[in-house]
Amino acid sequence: MVLVNENFLKLEESYLFAEIARRVETFRASHPKEKLIRLGIGDVTEPLPQAVIQAMHKAVDEMGRRESFHGYAPDQGYDFLRETIVKNDYETRGIHVDMDEIFVSDGAKCDTGNIGDILAQGNRVALTDPVYPVYVDTNRMAGRSIAYLPSTAENGFRPPLPDEPADVIYLCYPNNPTGTTLPREELKRWVDYALENRSLILYDAAYEAYIRQADVPHSIYEIEGARRVAIEFRSFSKTAGFTGQRCAFTVVPHELEGYTAAGKQIALHGLWSRRTSTKFNGVSYVTQRGAQAVYSPEGQAQVKATVDYYMENARILREGLQACGWEVYGGTDAPYIWLRTPRGVSSWEFFGQLLSKLHIVGTPGVGFGPSGEGYLRLTAFGRREDTLEATERLRKF
Amino acid sequence: MVLVNENFLKLEESYLFAEIARRVETFRASHPKEKLIRLGIGDVTEPLPQAVIQAMHKAVDEMGRRESFHGYAPDQGYDFLRETIVKNDYETRGIHVDMDEIFVSDGAKCDTGNIGDILAQGNRVALTDPVYPVYVDTNRMAGRSIAYLPSTAENGFRPPLPDEPADVIYLCYPNNPTGTTLPREELKRWVDYALENRSLILYDAAYEAYIRQADVPHSIYEIEGARRVAIEFRSFSKTAGFTGQRCAFTVVPHELEGYTAAGKQIALHGLWSRRTSTKFNGVSYVTQRGAQAVYSPEGQAQVKATVDYYMENARILREGLQACGWEVYGGTDAPYIWLRTPRGVSSWEFFGQLLSKLHIVGTPGVGFGPSGEGYLRLTAFGRREDTLEATERLRKF
Repeated sequence: MVLVNENFLKLEESYLFAEIARRVETFRASHPKEKLIRLGIGDVTEPLPQAVIQAMHKAVDEMGRRESFHGYAPDQGYDFLRETIVKNDYETRGIHVDMDEIFVSDGAKCDTGNIGDILAQGNRVALTDPVYPVYVDTNRMAGRSIAYLPSTAENGFRPPLPDEPADVIYLCYPNNPTGTTLPREELKRWVDYALENRSLILYDAAYEAYIRQADVPHSIYEIEGARRVAIEFRSFSKTAGFTGQRCAFTVVPHELEGYTAAGKQIALHGLWSRRTSTKFNGVSYVTQRGAQAVYSPEGQAQVKATVDYYMENARILREGLQACGWEVYGGTDAPYIWLRTPRGVSSWEFFGQLLSKLHIVGTPGVGFGPSGEGYLRLTAFGRREDTLEATERLRKF
Repeated sequence: MVLVNENFLKLEESYLFAEIARRVETFRASHPKEKLIRLGIGDVTEPLPQAVIQAMHKAVDEMGRRESFHGYAPDQGYDFLRETIVKNDYETRGIHVDMDEIFVSDGAKCDTGNIGDILAQGNRVALTDPVYPVYVDTNRMAGRSIAYLPSTAENGFRPPLPDEPADVIYLCYPNNPTGTTLPREELKRWVDYALENRSLILYDAAYEAYIRQADVPHSIYEIEGARRVAIEFRSFSKTAGFTGQRCAFTVVPHELEGYTAAGKQIALHGLWSRRTSTKFNGVSYVTQRGAQAVYSPEGQAQVKATVDYYMENARILREGLQACGWEVYGGTDAPYIWLRTPRGVSSWEFFGQLLSKLHIVGTPGVGFGPSGEGYLRLTAFGRREDTLEATERLRKF
């Protein structure tokens, strides 16, 4: 008799964004003519940079000719991309990362979920709360216990260190959903904690390209000792509009070690390498060529223009809302605005009000965890005219 | 203290193909001038069909313009592709599959590994032996016990039903690595077994496009009752040369159920849907448009020409080797030739002899499981001239 993984039965009924999509569809069915402004899901709207488009056309042509066709890609990614990543994302910041510590994948969502495969079920997981739901659900699916570390306006969005020792800690900075960042000395606190407690930090830096302030670290490896305790996840999704193209990478330093129950040290690089070669088959050649082009001079200029465009949206939302008395956070180093709901109005109630009255789709803060109650997330990934209109509608609310 | 998944430490030291690559590299380093013929790894060599190339160029252009840009794809795949799959792969054979039973993914390797996420650790797994190593390693990583069902020349490559009840059964037909198939009445035996024992069959049909004989089922759903016990995995990798492009799909029928330890029935469709939306982010739009074009009249003609090309390679190898006394199997409905080694010579020894003396790279049969000892796999995915030369070299051996 085939037995199911019963941890799945303990999950909340549906994945947050699927639930939002359902509610939006219900609204649309009864209001087919209303113009909805979607600032809910964190999906980009600007096209791929032209440098990427050109590189992909060239790669597609290569795939159509026998002499330049590419079959299976190397499981960890093509050297041409991994070299480019090391040089541009790390060397330029004075960070040492070996090329074979880079694992190219089809998404940071997949990686932050799949990384659990190499970790024991018994690890205690700590998450800053509110949090990207994938960290919660993937660990619940694996039967792990989870501790929430509140990150709210009350503590300045600087979550406390865990009370009980945590074995695995997820940190996402710039943060999704709050749009806040951690200054260097705060991140150092976490690295020191992990060094002391032999914990693993899973550092999700998917929004790194949006950092504007000088004292905000772009990589956890800027902090001394981090190579011994942290895996870093990066993505082209938000950097270069790859949400529909699928390319990301994960850095697993050679020095990073986990432990057996008997206390023996085991390099995580070898385990993740084995997981990758066994359960993954590489990223499309065409996509990897596109990702490489992100780093060309033209690609960098085009990416910067797009990020600037979104960050101008963030400024419009943030300043427009602040000017008329809304309490807002984020939006200075991240494409997310974290909006406090009016006093006494819950996240889902406020979501419903925005949907039915203003025809704006946000994301209820509580969907990201208990400490998100009383907040709503708006994204800066909309189009300029929609962002302006949404700001105007909210101003009048 | 972060604990590792200690099941990883019990795995064989390296993944088969990585080990072969290592040995080949060692040989090449000391024999840089020898021309190697690679008939080892099952990777295609013919370019993508022109219909796919055209569709991908068009899709790349769409991704470069704001008005036609695509962000996150639906987790389960675009309707345009899922509809096309249902119509062409199933309706034409009189098989009913609902569109929402199709899950588009980045590879059958990933899917046959990841499916374990929704199954309990305690399931007893049965595998035909020799077997695709991914089934073994992914279940070992999850700590499941595995029973091998020998499939050799001695039993006509018709593996026996399990002695001990099996909860999960992997069947791959046309078979990798043996190149053999199961006739309809044999497959029915397995479906009946699963119905009787409430087992789950994971049916890997990645090589379906190579079937030539009329009595060989293309889908397990041709067998009555299979919708209640089987998940089917398909891929564009071998069908249309997508090994470097990454697109596949998995069919999870609504009727298919697993059980809780307390005996409650749970639809697997819901669990796989939840796993997909939580740990996966869809396949590239460009790739899905390419996959759709496989089914166009031009695409179908081009795919057929490529499959015919490989199957002519298979015929050349099979008949050439048979003519000079080699004992060979497969190659009639699959792109693999399963070659018996000379008496008393082990798979790895024979692999070494072919590499050092004939400069041919095969895959040692024992790498696919204990019953593969004494065999070697050759693929028909080489180029014609290489296939002819390899046949000639083997003839003289």
